Amino acid sequence: MSGTASTPILTEEVDIVIPTIRNLEFLEMWRAFFEPYHLIIVQDGDPSKVIKVPEGFDYELYTRNDINRILGSKARCISFKDSACRCFGFLLSKKKYIFTIDDDCFVAKDPSGKEINALEQHLKNLLTPSTPFFFNTLYDPFREGTDFVRGYPFSLREGVPTAASHGLWLNIPDYDAPTQLVKPLERNTRYVDAVMTIPKGTLFPMCGMNLAFNRELIGPAMYFGLMGDGQPIGRYDDMWAGWCMKVISDHLGLGVKTGLPYIWHSKASNPFVNLKKEYKGIYWQEELIPFFQSVSLPKECTTAQKCYIELSKQVKAKLGKVDEYFNKLADNMETWIEAWEELNPTGAAKSDALTNGPAK
Amino acid sequence: MSGTASTPILTEEVDIVIPTIRNLEFLEMWRAFFEPYHLIIVQDGDPSKVIKVPEGFDYELYTRNDINRILGSKARCISFKDSACRCFGFLLSKKKYIFTIDDDCFVAKDPSGKEINALEQHLKNLLTPSTPFFFNTLYDPFREGTDFVRGYPFSLREGVPTAASHGLWLNIPDYDAPTQLVKPLERNTRYVDAVMTIPKGTLFPMCGMNLAFNRELIGPAMYFGLMGDGQPIGRYDDMWAGWCMKVISDHLGLGVKTGLPYIWHSKASNPFVNLKKEYKGIYWQEELIPFFQSVSLPKECTTAQKCYIELSKQVKAKLGKVDEYFNKLADNMETWIEAWEELNPTGAAKSDALTNGPAK
Repeated sequence: MSGTASTPILTEEVDIVIPTIRNLEFLEMWRAFFEPYHLIIVQDGDPSKVIKVPEGFDYELYTRNDINRILGSKARCISFKDSACRCFGFLLSKKKYIFTIDDDCFVAKDPSGKEINALEQHLKNLLTPSTPFFFNTLYDPFREGTDFVRGYPFSLREGVPTAASHGLWLNIPDYDAPTQLVKPLERNTRYVDAVMTIPKGTLFPMCGMNLAFNRELIGPAMYFGLMGDGQPIGRYDDMWAGWCMKVISDHLGLGVKTGLPYIWHSKASNPFVNLKKEYKGIYWQEELIPFFQSVSLPKECTTAQKCYIELSKQVKAKLGKVDEYFNKLADNMETWIEAWEELNPTGAAKSDALTNGPAK
Repeated sequence: MSGTASTPILTEEVDIVIPTIRNLEFLEMWRAFFEPYHLIIVQDGDPSKVIKVPEGFDYELYTRNDINRILGSKARCISFKDSACRCFGFLLSKKKYIFTIDDDCFVAKDPSGKEINALEQHLKNLLTPSTPFFFNTLYDPFREGTDFVRGYPFSLREGVPTAASHGLWLNIPDYDAPTQLVKPLERNTRYVDAVMTIPKGTLFPMCGMNLAFNRELIGPAMYFGLMGDGQPIGRYDDMWAGWCMKVISDHLGLGVKTGLPYIWHSKASNPFVNLKKEYKGIYWQEELIPFFQSVSLPKECTTAQKCYIELSKQVKAKLGKVDEYFNKLADNMETWIEAWEELNPTGAAKSDALTNGPAK
């Protein structure tokens, strides 16, 4: 496989964050692409269970014990026994870019049969501007072989910095439990050769399986909420992060892309288990979406941190009445930002991250 | 070629509208796909120049003389010597669906080498709902083999009726003159296998080369403006129609899709001629886009006609100061609706079109 990987880029500026690896085949599959990069593995379950990372990888591994030790009482904001714990890795990282991927996501092939270097495509997406204010019908105008089409205002062609790159999945599509139950055999076989900016003001379902972002620009908004053990819902961690991240990116004038790269999603999770995790989310969501569609952040909120604190207040004020859970979530959103500022000191400005203070 | 065409659908409900055919090879290329349908050809130039339509096609052909005879003084709203004249065909049609295509657009092939039945794909797009309120990351959820992904609110999964389907172009991309000049050799070779809804509140550059729409739902908004002979700009006819159509579709709760089908765009128009036509549009556009982005239509506007009249008033009020041309355009937008109501009588309601009154 190593012959198919292209020269790795930005190796010093990227952390790959992986929630618990249950499947060591996963790392072998990605060896050619991941070996040049630093990995942060966050083990979400029993801390005494040892993950044996194969030779050759440059990694840090954190268990619940480490999370508790590093964050102290603030560790409550990190989900337990749920892949939402991945955001602990976002806190600890000192890199400009984060790529996060699940352990059931393998290397996909493009239609020519070539293995897809997902991280490389994510970095291309993050390194080129986004165009959230007007839709380009030939998709990403910054991609080779394409451009802005006739009728695209010239004043908008510089674009804006890209905060996040949302990649897709071949094979098992990311369906909710009801759709999984209704369509157990559906597989995604369609390779759509496109990257596009999700327009300003439009929300989308962000999946955490295959996701990259610019930690300096939007890291503090990438909190995956409270899921898993002891919480009333699951499988909404990435959705929550996506809605928060999108309204904050819109407010800050940043872009969010979706499309390429694909990974090969190998395994459908159990739809019955998923239904149990999701069912509250499925009806709460009907109130969450209108909330996020109408969120307005004051212009004083000039950094992702400030936006996130303001958002937590609005969550408490407007979603607290949906369920007590949202009060707790709002409190933990604040705790998350406190933890972020503790581990990423030098004031509350976006430029924090640019200076990369020491973490622990 | 006939062997590759699939069974034609909705032959009684579709008109194919073509502005002047300068190239008779065009109809031969499309014979297998177009022969089962009715064509409306609108000849935009010298009325004495005869277009010889090959045997076997079911068509009506209108010259400027016909436009003048049928519309009388209202004929002033139809552009002369410009493909914007195609909207005269939209007025005259009594069908539910319109497909309009330029004579330099040939049959494209999909990556498997199969000829693409563009009309069939447009009809699929128009017959399935749109999803303008939330982005689906696997694109059109109504397409075979895909669905709404996890996190897509269930209350939004019914979608809304689709007003328009905007198809794309392989080979010569639809670039403006400056981009044509800078990238004379760029060709679009990327087949993106996707159809998607353009989100509510997002504008896009609608190209008239390969476009279909539901005439009953949105026909009155598909006015291609005043271009060509005697007008200060060209090549903004479809853009104008697209911006008007999109804000009206958003207001009426209708959807607009873009993506498949592709056609093969055979010929780049002359960039120097295009620059002359476009240059005013290029700077006016910088004021037009903020105008359309902020248009708000009152809730009394419940039909495309009412919306269009209201929009014409706002054009006059807000764009008249950009250039005198927009006052004239606004007047002709009203004339267009008068002509529409004359040729499509039975009151001002959307349901007009459903009853299809006699035309001439």
